[in-house]
Formats: sequence, structure tokens, C-alpha cells
Amino acid sequence: MRVIDEMGQRAQIASRQLSIAGEAKNDALKAIAKALTENVGKIMEANRIDLENGRNNGLSAALLDRLTLNESRIQGVADGVLEVAALPDPIGTVISGSTRPNGLEITKVRVPLGVIGIIFESRPNVTVDAAVLCLKSGNAVILRGGKEAIHSNKCLTAIMQDAVESAGLDRNAVQLIEDTTRQSSIELMELTEYLDVLIPRGGKGLIRAVVENAKVPVIETGAGNCHVFVDESADIAMAANIIYNAKTSRPSVCNAIETILVHENIAEKALPAVKARLDEKNVELRGCEKTRAILGDSVIPAEEKDWETEYGDYILAVKVVSSLEEATAHIARYSTGHSECIVTSNYQNAKKFVATVDSAAVYVNASTRFTDGGMFGLGAEIGISTQKLHARGPMGLNELTSMKFIIEGDGQIR
Amino acid sequence: MRVIDEMGQRAQIASRQLSIAGEAKNDALKAIAKALTENVGKIMEANRIDLENGRNNGLSAALLDRLTLNESRIQGVADGVLEVAALPDPIGTVISGSTRPNGLEITKVRVPLGVIGIIFESRPNVTVDAAVLCLKSGNAVILRGGKEAIHSNKCLTAIMQDAVESAGLDRNAVQLIEDTTRQSSIELMELTEYLDVLIPRGGKGLIRAVVENAKVPVIETGAGNCHVFVDESADIAMAANIIYNAKTSRPSVCNAIETILVHENIAEKALPAVKARLDEKNVELRGCEKTRAILGDSVIPAEEKDWETEYGDYILAVKVVSSLEEATAHIARYSTGHSECIVTSNYQNAKKFVATVDSAAVYVNASTRFTDGGMFGLGAEIGISTQKLHARGPMGLNELTSMKFIIEGDGQIR
Repeated sequence: MRVIDEMGQRAQIASRQLSIAGEAKNDALKAIAKALTENVGKIMEANRIDLENGRNNGLSAALLDRLTLNESRIQGVADGVLEVAALPDPIGTVISGSTRPNGLEITKVRVPLGVIGIIFESRPNVTVDAAVLCLKSGNAVILRGGKEAIHSNKCLTAIMQDAVESAGLDRNAVQLIEDTTRQSSIELMELTEYLDVLIPRGGKGLIRAVVENAKVPVIETGAGNCHVFVDESADIAMAANIIYNAKTSRPSVCNAIETILVHENIAEKALPAVKARLDEKNVELRGCEKTRAILGDSVIPAEEKDWETEYGDYILAVKVVSSLEEATAHIARYSTGHSECIVTSNYQNAKKFVATVDSAAVYVNASTRFTDGGMFGLGAEIGISTQKLHARGPMGLNELTSMKFIIEGDGQIR
Repeated sequence: MRVIDEMGQRAQIASRQLSIAGEAKNDALKAIAKALTENVGKIMEANRIDLENGRNNGLSAALLDRLTLNESRIQGVADGVLEVAALPDPIGTVISGSTRPNGLEITKVRVPLGVIGIIFESRPNVTVDAAVLCLKSGNAVILRGGKEAIHSNKCLTAIMQDAVESAGLDRNAVQLIEDTTRQSSIELMELTEYLDVLIPRGGKGLIRAVVENAKVPVIETGAGNCHVFVDESADIAMAANIIYNAKTSRPSVCNAIETILVHENIAEKALPAVKARLDEKNVELRGCEKTRAILGDSVIPAEEKDWETEYGDYILAVKVVSSLEEATAHIARYSTGHSECIVTSNYQNAKKFVATVDSAAVYVNASTRFTDGGMFGLGAEIGISTQKLHARGPMGLNELTSMKFIIEGDGQIR
């Protein structure tokens, strides 16, 4: 039997205990938070090896920063664990119920998914974040992190396993795949016998690879080619403010915008106002011909690929459109279905945009940066789904659950 | 561009119109029902070609029966379409909503999935059933039916397309893949650019092939290795009645049982009573050694594979167990997660069985045959999901939908 099958089997056994665990799950979470705080030195020691290897292998400064665990970051992770412990337990919630004419009492209740796989890049904070969300929702988890963080991940996982065990639960509720070759990823993607769902967390390449190769059910997360459409009736100052916020407050995240579409009847007034704000952060503009006719040659001519690109950077594509319909058609063609916004003062246009645009989050007069589990009041977030099956938009604890029907009778037959 | 890509593109365009169609969807359904009734002769003529080809190709009597469309069956399909038209429209339902502290109004509303693919075997009634459920829930559908029914399917699809068009909707809301080679199935399974979900309807082999090969999200349906556990406190007459019903009322369906587990403390009394009922229909029993010690040599010795097999026939595996725990462990090992039942008079045991057994439908004192969209009050059923993601158990119209977040503000930024 392969290592991965043994892990799957152990996870399935642990998941059965977890599915009916109740308060012990919170005990485990609190024990994890405590152990993280108490083992800061040990964690930083393990992390130091990863950082050294990373530097030797020429990792970029940005990647090294994401890989780094220092005392305040570890404390931040521990605080996050306590916040998850304080959330209501989704398991056992009655979703709906009825008594049928034949007297059968049917209740639909929330249950864990079972065993969740998480594939992610070299961000050791994700190791803990993802594991505790799975635990809280009664699921066993198999983690497959990036190879650059392997020492940190091994240390964090061992700490979590001991904490889980101290709460009377099966330590195999949290497992880490220590083999970081490509082969181990593929094995996890094909583990149909044990895995109920696989969630990739990371960049486009990782997500694409999982969607293409997985035989287990996958929840696609993260890709965000987001748009703001400035309608002809928009308040220009509001539009500029929203665009500035949605582009520059954190350009690398998936709910940042990449393209703005501006109605031609407002473009001459709106574009200079928008540009003035974006110039504060030296945002590079790539515009259509009409945009360049208004803003001048400092705007780089946009090419087809600019409409498709998630820059994740201080770059914004700009297109002047002749109608709301042209804007929504552009979005339908190029959007990844994450978040889009209309800035408008026209009631009917707001309604039409909301009805027509097929994305997880559709905004009227607000920044797309709000697409986030915390901001939406979900309390925690495992990722943002850009697919339509099972979960769409920010995924909280409920999105890590399934349900079952319980049918109680007194001998009914059909 | 491949034919399948053109179909996908057309379906996506049709799905946009459908997603905001409202009452026109019901007009289309009523037009389909009317057209089916008016075109009985034409449909039977097309079906006759399929039946003749089927006989020439040596199809079994059972398969030929499933392939057959006669006047009363066509009328039955048309009546079913009208029933779906009469159901409430799931689209636009507000699932939840709140106003956030910053004044953002967030509403989660039900929207269609988009484009649904259905792969099914040679049952032409499914062609219409599946298409109208997709239409009613605002989805465009691409159908890929079994090759034996191709003439029937082409005729039915053309009738549906004309009816859809007569209601002012895009006829490409319903499309049939006319190429019935294996290649066309594979292409559909890999159509990630256009397909939001693929639902296989049919036998184990078909479903396995789809799960193994699909790159698009799949909802697994149908496999049912279902169990009844007769607890030591069971009412024996009730147990025998439930087992008789769950095994013999329709052995070929997925909610029929395949194995019973009987507590050793009641086995000597219960097994003869159960056998007496099953003998009425000449059900073949395959039992463990303890079963054979009680019921005698007429019971065939059960082998490992008997616990795994979905007979779909008048055959039942029987095992004597020493405890509820042994019963639930057996179910955890062999069940396909469809439907399981405990017959008991013990409150704690009922609770424990329900909490421990991880299947879509868990019964206390009622026949597993009730696992069905109609019986559960869903009004219609596209299939029974045996996976945990998105949908579990009978899938009605809601399970053919997704949701989106609508966020309304007055200039909020983050």
C-alpha cells in the first residue's frame, strides 16, 4: 500500500470520530493556539532552515517574505485559530425539515464533508489556517504544501497533531504529505477512494494543474480578473475613489481590479479624474484607442492579452465602451467570474448590471475589495470559489460541510 | 473549431438569456408538453427505427423495453413536463442577506448554474426529463444520450427546440450531441470552457467512466449498495415488512437494498420471519455462516464480493452481526453512501445509527425505497447524488442552481 493510501485511510478513520466530536473540536483548536505560542522558538528554528534553503536557491524577496514566520506572525496565526474556535459550530445545524403526508419525518442536517485535501504554495501560515477551518467543520485534512516550506510545515503539523491528541481526538485529523515531489501532488489529486474534496490555494498555475489533473471533486479558487464599469450616470469622484481603492489598496490579491470600462458619454470627464487618483500610486495604464485619445500617449496601447490578464500589480487596463451592454459583454468574455462593479446613479442600469453579470460577487457603487469571508460576515475564509458548483464566492465554515437526510418513521413502506 | 466547442458557445449564449427569462421558461415547458402530445406519431416513427436497429443488434428484452416509446409513455413524459412547469421557479430566491456595519447591503440570491451536460444511456424519456429540469432552473443543456436511442433523441430534441423557440427563447437552450462515438463523450467531459457541470445518469460503468475522465465538475449519481440493520430491539414484523419492501418492490433501482445485517440476539427469531416474506418473491439469499446455521443450506454461502455487490435483482446478502458497531462498521466499509436503515425500538441506538452512518439518507424504521425526489417533496428529480459536494441525496431544481452575492453600497471602499 502506498503512503498516500495509508494517509487516506487514517484520515477517513479520524474523520468519523471528528464528525461527531462537538466541543472537543474547540478544545483542540485552543490547544493548537496555545502550542503555537509556546513553541515560537521551535517554529522559527524550522522556518530558518527553509529561509536559508530559499536564499540559497535564489527565491525572490517577495517569496522569501511570504515564507517567513516571525514571532508576531506566529502570534497572529494563533490569534486567528482562537477566532475560529469562537465561531458557531456549523455541524448539526438543521437546514430544513418536514413531515410528509405518510408520516415520515424528514430532516436535512449539516454534516462534515469528510476528508479534505488542501494543495498550497509555500506560505506556512496557510498550513495552520486551512487545518483549523477543516477541524472546526468536523473534517480531517491532508495538507500538501510547497516544498520551500517543508521544514516549517512539518514542525507546525507536529505541533497541531500533539494538540489535537491532547484534546482527546485522533492526531491523524491533520496530516502533512512530506514528499514534495510532483508525484505526491498527482497521487493526492487521484485519491478518489478517500478524498471528498480537494481545494487548491495559490496561483493560477497551481489551480489550473489541479483542475486539469484531479479525479477527485475540486473547488476552484482564486483567479480574479475583476472589472469596474463606470456608467454614464456615475458620480465621478465616487468612481475614481472606488477604482483607486480596488486597484491600489492591495494589487496582488484576487479581489483587486484589472480592467475598467468607462461609458463614452462620461469618459472625457471621468478618465482624467480617475487617472489623477491612480497617478498617486504610479499605476501604469493600458488603454484602448479612445482612452488614449482622451488621456494621451502616456497610456500604453492595450492589446488583446491585456483584457485577459490578472496583473496582480500596479497596472490597469482601460476601455471606453458605448453602452452598458458592451460593458457586460466584455465582462462575460474576459472575466474569471470573481467580482465586478458598476458605478452608477441610474436605478435601472444598476438592476440590469446585477442581473446580467455572472460573477460570484456583483457590486453597485462599492469596491470589489470587499469580496472576502471576513468582510461578508462569514467569520473565516478558506478561499474564494470562482466555480458555480457547491460554493461560490468567499467560502466559510458552511462551505466545508455537506448535509444528510434523516428519515424517521414507524414502519412506512412504499 | 470543433462541433462541441460551437455547441458550447451556443449553449453559453442561450444560458445568458435563460438566466433572466422568468415566465418564458414555463411557456417553453408548456409548449414542449403540447408538442410532444401533438407529435406522438412522428416520435414513435423515429423510435421504431431505434427499436428495429436494437433488435438487429441483439439488444436484450429489458434494454428494448427501456428504449421503447409508445403513446402512453409519451403522454406520461408530457404530463411530467407540465408538472415541472407548475413547480415554483428557484431562480431569484433570496437565500440570505444582511446589512454590514459599513452600510453595505449583501444579498445572496439563487442563479442558474449556466450550462449543464447530461450523459445518459438509451432511455429516451430521460432526454426530455433532464432537458426540462435544466430549462426550468434557467440552465442551457447539452445532451449526450446512448447511441441506441439516437433517432428518438434527435426527434425529441428537434421538437423541444421548436417549442423553446416558440416561447421566444433561444432554441440552443437544448442541444443534442448527434455523434454517439466514445470520442464525443470524452470531448464533453473535457469541455471546461463552456460546461459548468456534467451529470451522468445511468449504470455504474458510465458513472465510473465520467468520474475518471471528466475535467469539468461532475455530480456523481446513482450507485446504491443499500443496507437494512435489524437491531436486537426491532419489531420483527416491521423489519420483515421493510426488508420485503426495500428488496422486492423494485429490485433494479438504486434505493433498493442489497444486504441486511441482523443482530445476533434477534437473528434466530428474525431471520426465519424475514425469509418467509422474501420467499414470496423467491429472493435468493447469500448468507454468512451464522445465517446459514439458522436458515439452513438453502442459503448460498456469502463471499466477500457479495458485500460489495449492487445486485439490482431478487438477491439479498445476509450477515449476522454482534453489535450496532459491527453493523455501522460494515456499512462504512461497503456502502456506496446512498441509503441505509435501522429497524429498532431503542431510542439511543436509533440516534447512534443516524449520527454514525455517513450516507445521503439514513432511515429509522422505514423503507429505503423512499429516497426519491418526489417522495421527499422536491417535486422533481434529476438524479440522486452519492457524493458530498454541492448536492447529496435526491436532487431537485435547487440542486441545479448556484448563487451569487449582490453587494449594494454608496461608495464604500476598504
